[in-house]
Amino acid sequence: MKNQITSALSDFFFEYETPRQVLVRNRRVGVVCRLIQLGVLVYIIGWVFIYEKGYQSTDTAISSVFTKMKGVGYTNDSGGERVWDVADYVFPSQGDSSFVVMTNYIMTEGQSMGTCPELPGKHNCNTDADCEGGSFKRTGNGEMTGVCVNRTKTCEVLAWCPVEDDRKVPDPPLLLSAENYTLFIKNSVTFPAFDVSRSNLVEDIDSNYINSCLYHPDNAPLCPIFKLGDIIKLSDLDFQTIAKVGGAIGIVVDWTCNFDVDVKHCKPEYTFHGLYGSKEGASVGYNFRFARHYMEDKIQKRTLLKVFGIRFDIIVHSLARKFDIIPTLTAIGSGVGIFGVATVVCDLVLLYLLPKREFYKNMKFKYTDTQVQDPDSEAGSTETDVSKK
Amino acid sequence: MKNQITSALSDFFFEYETPRQVLVRNRRVGVVCRLIQLGVLVYIIGWVFIYEKGYQSTDTAISSVFTKMKGVGYTNDSGGERVWDVADYVFPSQGDSSFVVMTNYIMTEGQSMGTCPELPGKHNCNTDADCEGGSFKRTGNGEMTGVCVNRTKTCEVLAWCPVEDDRKVPDPPLLLSAENYTLFIKNSVTFPAFDVSRSNLVEDIDSNYINSCLYHPDNAPLCPIFKLGDIIKLSDLDFQTIAKVGGAIGIVVDWTCNFDVDVKHCKPEYTFHGLYGSKEGASVGYNFRFARHYMEDKIQKRTLLKVFGIRFDIIVHSLARKFDIIPTLTAIGSGVGIFGVATVVCDLVLLYLLPKREFYKNMKFKYTDTQVQDPDSEAGSTETDVSKK
Amino acid sequence: MKNQITSALSDFFFEYETPRQVLVRNRRVGVVCRLIQLGVLVYIIGWVFIYEKGYQSTDTAISSVFTKMKGVGYTNDSGGERVWDVADYVFPSQGDSSFVVMTNYIMTEGQSMGTCPELPGKHNCNTDADCEGGSFKRTGNGEMTGVCVNRTKTCEVLAWCPVEDDRKVPDPPLLLSAENYTLFIKNSVTFPAFDVSRSNLVEDIDSNYINSCLYHPDNAPLCPIFKLGDIIKLSDLDFQTIAKVGGAIGIVVDWTCNFDVDVKHCKPEYTFHGLYGSKEGASVGYNFRFARHYMEDKIQKRTLLKVFGIRFDIIVHSLARKFDIIPTLTAIGSGVGIFGVATVVCDLVLLYLLPKREFYKNMKFKYTDTQVQDPDSEAGSTETDVSKK
Repeated sequence: MKNQITSALSDFFFEYETPRQVLVRNRRVGVVCRLIQLGVLVYIIGWVFIYEKGYQSTDTAISSVFTKMKGVGYTNDSGGERVWDVADYVFPSQGDSSFVVMTNYIMTEGQSMGTCPELPGKHNCNTDADCEGGSFKRTGNGEMTGVCVNRTKTCEVLAWCPVEDDRKVPDPPLLLSAENYTLFIKNSVTFPAFDVSRSNLVEDIDSNYINSCLYHPDNAPLCPIFKLGDIIKLSDLDFQTIAKVGGAIGIVVDWTCNFDVDVKHCKPEYTFHGLYGSKEGASVGYNFRFARHYMEDKIQKRTLLKVFGIRFDIIVHSLARKFDIIPTLTAIGSGVGIFGVATVVCDLVLLYLLPKREFYKNMKFKYTDTQVQDPDSEAGSTETDVSKK
Repeated sequence: MKNQITSALSDFFFEYETPRQVLVRNRRVGVVCRLIQLGVLVYIIGWVFIYEKGYQSTDTAISSVFTKMKGVGYTNDSGGERVWDVADYVFPSQGDSSFVVMTNYIMTEGQSMGTCPELPGKHNCNTDADCEGGSFKRTGNGEMTGVCVNRTKTCEVLAWCPVEDDRKVPDPPLLLSAENYTLFIKNSVTFPAFDVSRSNLVEDIDSNYINSCLYHPDNAPLCPIFKLGDIIKLSDLDFQTIAKVGGAIGIVVDWTCNFDVDVKHCKPEYTFHGLYGSKEGASVGYNFRFARHYMEDKIQKRTLLKVFGIRFDIIVHSLARKFDIIPTLTAIGSGVGIFGVATVVCDLVLLYLLPKREFYKNMKFKYTDTQVQDPDSEAGSTETDVSKK
Repeated sequence: MKNQITSALSDFFFEYETPRQVLVRNRRVGVVCRLIQLGVLVYIIGWVFIYEKGYQSTDTAISSVFTKMKGVGYTNDSGGERVWDVADYVFPSQGDSSFVVMTNYIMTEGQSMGTCPELPGKHNCNTDADCEGGSFKRTGNGEMTGVCVNRTKTCEVLAWCPVEDDRKVPDPPLLLSAENYTLFIKNSVTFPAFDVSRSNLVEDIDSNYINSCLYHPDNAPLCPIFKLGDIIKLSDLDFQTIAKVGGAIGIVVDWTCNFDVDVKHCKPEYTFHGLYGSKEGASVGYNFRFARHYMEDKIQKRTLLKVFGIRFDIIVHSLARKFDIIPTLTAIGSGVGIFGVATVVCDLVLLYLLPKREFYKNMKFKYTDTQVQDPDSEAGSTETDVSKK
């Protein structure tokens, strides 16, 4: 028994199986099949390996973005001359990856809690009966008191008074100077699978360069300082329009890196996209309301700002690649499988389409006939019984 | 030499190799193997291709979210009647994808820098020795002065005074009207690999529809305006409970798109999940502190708000699919490989389990015997030396 | 006709094809090929299946993070004693996943709109001609009035006056006590593909534990409360340096989970990374400007804070794995494909490198000769025409 196992094992180890093949010497079949196989080979090498880089594994980064605006705005409306600096026009102030730069506003100063009539056009009424006391309207400014104010023909509300009049948006926008503000982006990415960290302040960028450069898609594609007007232009938007009603712009920082070459070639690319353009009919612009509270003569008051602005979303899009044995072998293995498909196709041609198909069938197949009773005689009989079929 | 290469090349191109096969005519083996092969085929076509759509490549989107709340709240506590509008109850105000709607609060008005005793229950003391001057407690409100206040039996601290008393959370919550606020979500997604951009204001949604619609999972699944009470209900939470202690809700905007059909079928689906429910024992609710600073009689003062609220996280989950030749061929290639596994299994049955296994072994294998000295005679001898084994 | 189809079908179902193979009995070839095949097998099982877990499908989570700081700071500069609590030193206040803790500041109190000279060093001038009225400088504080102020030799600007003097950053940082603040992180993740939700307050963590624990990488790796000083230390940074000029730290919450084992083993791991260290030459530190507005004697004033602080980004990195039939079969199929590559390599050895290669070639291949005119005689003739080649 032990001997048997040993001999079976040694048989197994010293033997090698390889499929027997028919070498069909036929020009048409040969050329067709070699072309199919060539096509598969070209596909595997050219497409999977070279074009799609199937021999590499991929990873996306975890990233952190910090932004900083610079520049001063100036307005001169009824409230007098006024200068707007970063602490005034950026929301939120702490340099998030998503922030708003104010370009236009409707300011309602000195609001305090009290009763006053709604805006004309909103909650119109003729008699007190039209204004149900204690109820709210979804788009209203406060709680209705149940009184219809004769002067304005609108319901009286308990609200921050006087209510904001946002029926007319300032045009041209008040802070057109926003076009000259600059945005500085600091972005660091880490690819955990490859243990690589990069910053958008790459090797060639030192503090001298940063102090003087301005991003330009062709001349200074790595400068991390952007003029707002340039960003708008590169997003195919019109500054005056977007500054008036507001809008949103995505700044995509694209890290597409190949770590099979030196890591210093891994550099960011910046692209700019208008996110909610003025083309959309359903909901135009971007605005929000913001209040500054203060006390005056022991009364709580607030300055309400309806802020129209450009919202910037810094979106980091990362994809790093590096040679890895697993995807390589998976691609090869699957390529060999596709080779098998090529053989199947050629066999179909050979066995069903060619005039001499019967001949090739006999060459390729050996038939076992279950009617044959004597297993000892099978070698000879099966070799010749193909013609009996 | 040159001739030889030419002839070898022409041989190669005009030849075609195909494996020789044994056609086993045995009902049992035939049925078993055909069933296994059928199973593999059904698996590859049915599961990999149709169910899992293995012929498609996938991409996730880069997205931008903007939110806007509407609605007015009303409170009437000791401080008098008060109306709360968007600028008062949303944090932060600029319409981020993650924001908090205040539903309850503890307001401490008129705090200024000074010394006052800690809250009863915190930093209890009997003598001054219990209050180490100059030290801090992690949960305290300020720096201890080293004095034990007799009246309250707590340590005196240098802090914003008077200190906030948050021992009793208002119940019912002060801003129950939050249930009627509405939330408008604007979301645009871009699938960079397929170069497709979509907005949640899809084709059928115009400004008229937006002005009148309200989200309902069955009747208006595409309306981007949500009533807060509905969101809470769809998250399986109780409004009154969550409004009192605060909570967090995830609104998932799901973009599962198939770009093999018209892009206009790519529509968002909204689902709602309670993130930190009231069921968790360890850390209940959601709150934060927020201060409004002002000057009064040249003294800096502040109003401290302990805000209990519902935090909304708009989470965009995207997965787009489109036909791609690479995953298709990878799936086919790997399917052919699995077919190979089927053949191996059938061969095992044929060669080791069937009664006539020796017969089939002889049919399938041709043995080379290294003892055979004369290579010219091998064709005949090997054909018959199987019985010698 | 119908009969023919039936018989062809029954032939197909009751037949089974298996490739004919040559069993080469050669020790060298046998050992080489078995070793190659063994290598492939070990690679597939060991690497693809066990190491890379190729039998599992993967999913990333959607996550929600909420943070809460605790602790009190104390400063004693020219403005007198002052205590800083959470509402003062955290930006933004609502507990976002990305927030800033103030550690140092330059406060400019009582700014109001007016004209004043720029800081010495900025916009130096000798005569009014050096200050172009109505123009802005990118790094300036306001609009130039066209006047050169003799006293400071700088241009006069319309700005919030007096302008901030940030030439000297307080050293040591004013809020060194920030080292003792604590950060509480609440994080919930949902893996949609596996329908599993987890919170970082895992099973063993109850409210008692939370009230007393403090994160330590070895002793309390699951405690969600972190001391700021510890975080800085674990990020390999120096607290005093980073507190002075500011910096950014990424807290990675790593959810690497295997759902083939019990879901309760799915626990978070916290790691800490300095994002913009002080080593970078180009742009050091982290700061932003923040203003508190107030009214004094009917004049709008503001307190400007240049905040230096540590910015924390809570980054959730998630990867869950679970057994799935598709990647399993894909891995197997592709492994079988790689087996095919092994066979090809062995065949090359057999047919081109061995001394008896001609012998093996004849064993493996059967040649069809297109010159043979009579297809009926092919069975015999091809079996023997190998020697004619």
